[in-house]
Amino acid sequence: MAHRVNPLVEAIPPSLIRAINAKKRPGDIDLGLGEPTLRPDAAPFEAAMAWVRENGCPYSPNAGYESLREQVAAYLGFPGAPNVCITVGSEEALYLGIKALIDPAKDEVLVVEPSYLAYAKICLMEGIRVRSVALPAADGFAPDAERVLAALGPDTRLIVLNSPSNPTGRIWPESELQRLAEGLAQRAEPVFVLSDEVYRELYFTPTPPPSIASYHPHSLVVGSLSKSNALTGLRLGWIAGPREVIAAAIKVHQFVNTAASTFSQKVAEAVFRAPGALGAHRPSYVQAQAALALQARQAGLTFLPPEGAFYCMVKLPESLAANSLAAAERLLEEERVVAVPGIAFGESAEGWLRLSWVTSGDRLAEGLARIGAFCRRHA
Amino acid sequence: MAHRVNPLVEAIPPSLIRAINAKKRPGDIDLGLGEPTLRPDAAPFEAAMAWVRENGCPYSPNAGYESLREQVAAYLGFPGAPNVCITVGSEEALYLGIKALIDPAKDEVLVVEPSYLAYAKICLMEGIRVRSVALPAADGFAPDAERVLAALGPDTRLIVLNSPSNPTGRIWPESELQRLAEGLAQRAEPVFVLSDEVYRELYFTPTPPPSIASYHPHSLVVGSLSKSNALTGLRLGWIAGPREVIAAAIKVHQFVNTAASTFSQKVAEAVFRAPGALGAHRPSYVQAQAALALQARQAGLTFLPPEGAFYCMVKLPESLAANSLAAAERLLEEERVVAVPGIAFGESAEGWLRLSWVTSGDRLAEGLARIGAFCRRHA
Repeated sequence: MAHRVNPLVEAIPPSLIRAINAKKRPGDIDLGLGEPTLRPDAAPFEAAMAWVRENGCPYSPNAGYESLREQVAAYLGFPGAPNVCITVGSEEALYLGIKALIDPAKDEVLVVEPSYLAYAKICLMEGIRVRSVALPAADGFAPDAERVLAALGPDTRLIVLNSPSNPTGRIWPESELQRLAEGLAQRAEPVFVLSDEVYRELYFTPTPPPSIASYHPHSLVVGSLSKSNALTGLRLGWIAGPREVIAAAIKVHQFVNTAASTFSQKVAEAVFRAPGALGAHRPSYVQAQAALALQARQAGLTFLPPEGAFYCMVKLPESLAANSLAAAERLLEEERVVAVPGIAFGESAEGWLRLSWVTSGDRLAEGLARIGAFCRRHA
Repeated sequence: MAHRVNPLVEAIPPSLIRAINAKKRPGDIDLGLGEPTLRPDAAPFEAAMAWVRENGCPYSPNAGYESLREQVAAYLGFPGAPNVCITVGSEEALYLGIKALIDPAKDEVLVVEPSYLAYAKICLMEGIRVRSVALPAADGFAPDAERVLAALGPDTRLIVLNSPSNPTGRIWPESELQRLAEGLAQRAEPVFVLSDEVYRELYFTPTPPPSIASYHPHSLVVGSLSKSNALTGLRLGWIAGPREVIAAAIKVHQFVNTAASTFSQKVAEAVFRAPGALGAHRPSYVQAQAALALQARQAGLTFLPPEGAFYCMVKLPESLAANSLAAAERLLEEERVVAVPGIAFGESAEGWLRLSWVTSGDRLAEGLARIGAFCRRHA
């Protein structure tokens, strides 16, 4: 019997990334991954185990251990524990930010595209009006405050930004963040920025990515240990922001899942305690990014060298540009290489593929060469 | 600056349990706890550590590892993995069940009281109409299918049941569950039952608590390892039910927090693999329940001997019965004993206190004696 379910949930479109992944066969070269292939440091796990042997595995406070909240606040430059809620990965942090702040009856969310599609899907699921503003491919998806400000509507209450960006690898520079903050300061009612900084530690620019929170008082910063420390399965993230909004987020958090795993929090405390642990994987990504850029050029690809994160946008040839999903399916069929169609990240990324370059060196070079051959064949 | 937040979140009333706990001082006897004081078995943690040393800490599939989903399905008597989603504790399972099934625009939820107040608060947060049906104190809060059936409205789509019950310690017997299922079978559109079975392993009846899922095809069963195995901080639970509803629940789960902790899932797999591990703590609770009953009688209390879970309802004397919150505050002030006011579980439990008897033997006997003295003084 088919059961009627919540129509808002039913209406969420299926994941294109998943559709491609479902067609993957053993031996295929997978450049579609969304998680690091590096191994995490075992020491923080040993520290958490020692804690559990001593203390068992009790509930933490709803918002997380005070000590961990303090560590995250210090890391992000927020005043203290009341500005932080520990979450089940950055996904829950995004959910809490949107759910806690937005009045579904009147507010609107503006998503900066191309973007991770969960932002818009969370809004759909919550019955929240959502629009997007595109950073056009013609400008290399360059961050552009004027464009975002021009897209604001009278009901826009929240802008969702991602820097470094999945999928484009672009980083919002200080100048554009300042311009955005100045523009937002003109609004009568504060417009919040939900800043997804989950790739914060993975950058190839001379200085670390700046955060909108340094310029705009109405910022909610989301992050996790998933990407920086190859700890996707730890499900440990955070949301930081003004106390009143975090207090509302903690309320939602309590009814959504009570608290994050105590063990995971103890792993995280050990990571934050170890000097430099959050940036420990960066040198390996810096090296991999350089290799990627070299190999992509050798393969003859038209691509955007990433400034951060571990993705790379590759331009499809004219004949395939109108339908990146069909192109990705054909690439898999003809060359046995998995790549994510640009359309999975919004209309503005149609005509592109997103490659993940966390796979091992040889496989990456081989995959890029095959994509090069594929693009030439269909040019 | 005070920020405007989601009014549905702001409107959720604060927790009375928390209000009492906030007044606790060092040295007070705490009979307000909601978590076991036993220590969890370390072996499943060692097994999970061995797995992490070998495999790192990658994402699990959104719905959880297939192997764990199979284990949970077998444990609950559901067909297989597609009937199960692994969740961040039973709290997330409750959230998913309500969110996935209910159309906020038309459906209504009916909560059987006295109950854990999160059920109703989740509905408030989601803008879902919620009503309650009370099992009256005069009947010892006895499960009563007729009463629940009589309370159904034309839009009731979901009934929330909890057996063994927090706070009453009552267990729904086979006969009443059968009667409920028979009554629900008369409805044109299926009415689902969300069955919170988080205390399933902690029973003092001759046979284990039956589940509505054995009698009613439209059942969603929620549980976790939190209470059975003293693993509240593991944040590992599940929801099981018909495939289509579970598929919708998995969709919500994906946008709320992606997946449960990989480490926690590996701990859970080890628990399910070890024969009898889920019931390993039961003998200790059986013994504690017998001691509780004896000591409560010795203390001269009017109480309901629990059939399951680890709580006990104690009747307040006439002079205090109209305001259990004030009584609990006074008990704390006069006797330094923490107990939860019945009103925290709905109007039907007004005039009662909920005691938790997981505290150590001596402290429990002393706490009960003090409550006895308190009740006599105010009789």
